[in-house]
Formats: sequence, structure tokens, C-alpha cells
Amino acid sequence: MFENIYKEYFPFWEKISDEDREYICRNSHMFTYPKGRNIHNGEECSGVILVRSGSLRLYMMSDEGKEITLYRLYRGDLCMLSASCVLDAITFDVFVDAEEDSQCCVVSGPAFAAVSQRNPDIRIFALETAVSRFSDVMWVLQQVLFMSMDKRLAIFLSDESARTGSDTITLTHGQIARYMGSAREVVSRMLKYFAGEGIVEVSRGGVMILDKKRLRNLTL
Amino acid sequence: MFENIYKEYFPFWEKISDEDREYICRNSHMFTYPKGRNIHNGEECSGVILVRSGSLRLYMMSDEGKEITLYRLYRGDLCMLSASCVLDAITFDVFVDAEEDSQCCVVSGPAFAAVSQRNPDIRIFALETAVSRFSDVMWVLQQVLFMSMDKRLAIFLSDESARTGSDTITLTHGQIARYMGSAREVVSRMLKYFAGEGIVEVSRGGVMILDKKRLRNLTL
Repeated sequence: MFENIYKEYFPFWEKISDEDREYICRNSHMFTYPKGRNIHNGEECSGVILVRSGSLRLYMMSDEGKEITLYRLYRGDLCMLSASCVLDAITFDVFVDAEEDSQCCVVSGPAFAAVSQRNPDIRIFALETAVSRFSDVMWVLQQVLFMSMDKRLAIFLSDESARTGSDTITLTHGQIARYMGSAREVVSRMLKYFAGEGIVEVSRGGVMILDKKRLRNLTL
Repeated sequence: MFENIYKEYFPFWEKISDEDREYICRNSHMFTYPKGRNIHNGEECSGVILVRSGSLRLYMMSDEGKEITLYRLYRGDLCMLSASCVLDAITFDVFVDAEEDSQCCVVSGPAFAAVSQRNPDIRIFALETAVSRFSDVMWVLQQVLFMSMDKRLAIFLSDESARTGSDTITLTHGQIARYMGSAREVVSRMLKYFAGEGIVEVSRGGVMILDKKRLRNLTL
């Protein structure tokens, strides 16, 4: 089962020995996580996670429980930051939650580390995967530092709408604030302003986008 | 000249061919940058910079000129982010300034990229260097998002004092604000509060730390 999946997603698969391929498969498990389940909490080495279906959210959390979403992983994406034992240079902790019901293959961290020691191609693949996420995180940092709150919220609502394929974002103000690393009052105030402008309608169920064009203009 | 320097700082040096070593040396230049000089402005591929003496500051800048320091590089440190043509996965722009008079060896980006294509050891070294800086940037993001301004300012003053070996930080409030990605008024207000508490003394020349112990407590 794993053999066929890894053949598709690991560019190094054909370059390593039969023994190493077998070793990786033997140290793999298939998990199905229900929506909302925490998969990795930054502490142990949870392993290398390959998303088969659904989506995962990667985020940082402060001691007080404040969060900021770093990026999301979809079908075919690989999470290296949950395998801190593979990459010595990663010294920070992230959290990973299933954002939908998600099926994932997980390769044990120590097993992946062992074969990557023997195979430079695996090592390069793991590092390149991590470095490509560096760019996502820099984008978040740039947003948080340099963008006004109205722009950030407009981008968040647009992204959520595109991601879910719906004009209604079914999240509470508190949830939106947590995902953006902001405070609920700040989000509520800004949503009230957007509603006053006729850009969104705020209801108990969430936030409905009324004027996509103006929302998009705010993101520019 | 370069041969002896690279032997010391590049762990892959003995593992690559004589031709590749010669090629890297032939595509290297020694530069002396005066304090304050901008070395890399995010646009072109400035090359791989190895610091021989002095120090460089790496930062992001918004369209409005707001800055945030990501990290500093000292003797023996290597800057890969100034060589975006070497690492495809790096898609963000950083700026690099000489913070003191600094001497640097610079390997041309295309030349470094060419030899790293041929040598997995170089590729792994370049990626590991980039990934290790990922952790520094995550720390900055954490600070900006989750820390109160008094704590951030206390950490900044402590770090500057440790870095320069002096109790007086000879920076204006505006400079401190720029380095921290904050606003001058916010820094001035907080320094006034620190001064009122007897932790620092603010003068025309900069900020003098009076009570190291209380400043340190604020950083915890």
C-alpha cells in the first residue's frame, strides 16, 4: 500500500535501495484524523506526515494560547516540521491540527532520519521541503508586521472563501482572531466596519461576503 | 587566498574535486564594506556571502520603509539568502547591510549554484545553512506576535548591550523602532516608562542601562 503512494510523492523513491524502501514502508502507518484533532503539539517527534486527503493546519501557539496560522497542507503535501528529529537545524515548535477529516501516511521520525543519513537524495528532499515552507512563513511575518488590519482581514476572508468555495465563512470572530494571531475585539471592530461599508454581512452563522470586488480591492 | 579561508569554513571543501575548488575560488571576490553600507537589496542574486570580519544585519523592509531585523551574521557566518539563484525554494526578499566595517568573501551565485548541482554535499550544506536561519526567523515571528512591547524592548536593549559590550546603546529612538519593526512613538513611550522606573537613562547620545537586573527580569 505505502509503496504505491510513496512512488508517487517521493522524488527519491527510485534512487534508493530496495532495503531502504522496505524499511520506510515497514515504519509507516496510515492514520485517519477527525476534523479538529490535534496531530502534533510541538513536543515529541511525530514523524514525517504525508497528506492523502483532507487538510492540515500548521500554527504556532504562545504560552497564553494565542495562535497564528503559518500555512496549510493538502493532498500530496509533506510536513517535515513535525519531524524535528530528522532536521537538526529546526529548533522551534509548531502545532498541527486536522482542519477536515484527513487521511495521512506517517513515517516514523527516527526511521526517516536513519535512511536520510544513508541517502543524500532523501536529505536534500527533506531540506528542500523545509526551506520551501520558510517562504510561506516569511509571507506571514510580512503580513503581520507591515500590513494594516483591514488588509489582513480582507486577505483572510478572501482566502477562506476561495479555500472552502463558499461566500460564507463559518467561523466565529474569536476563531478568525485566533487564526490571524489577533484579538477578538479587533476582528469584531473591523468586521463591523466592513459590514457598515456593505462589504460583508455578519450573522450568527459567520461572515457572508456581499461585495467581492471591494473586498478584493482591500487586499491589494 | 580563498582556498585557505574556504578550507576552514566549508565542511564540503575536501569532498569536492580540484576543478570545483578552483572554480569556486576563481568566482570569488573579497569586499570591504564600510559601516552602514547596503550590500544586498533583495533584487538581484548578490552571491553567497562569507563574513571574515565585522558584522552584517539581515532584515525585511516594507514598501513604506518599515524594517524588522531577522538576524545578524558574524565572522565565519554564511549568508545564503542573498543568493536566491542558488536555492529555488527561497522566494522572499531580504536586505543585508554592513553594521560595522566588514570584510567578506563573496562567491558568485551562478557559480555556487553550478557546483552545488554537481555536488550533493554542497547542496546539503547550502540548504542546512538556510534551514538553520528558519529557526531564527521563527523566533522573531514569535516575539512580534506573542510578546508585549516592554518585553521586546527589554530584550532588544539587553541584546544590544551584550553585542556591543557597552551599557550605553547609541541608537536614536527612531533607529530602535526601525530595528524592532515598531513605531518611534511606541519606543519613546516605553523608554520613558523604563526611565521612570530607573531601569534606563535616556539622553541625547542614546539609552544607558542603569539597572541590569530589572531589565533582565523584564526579558523573562
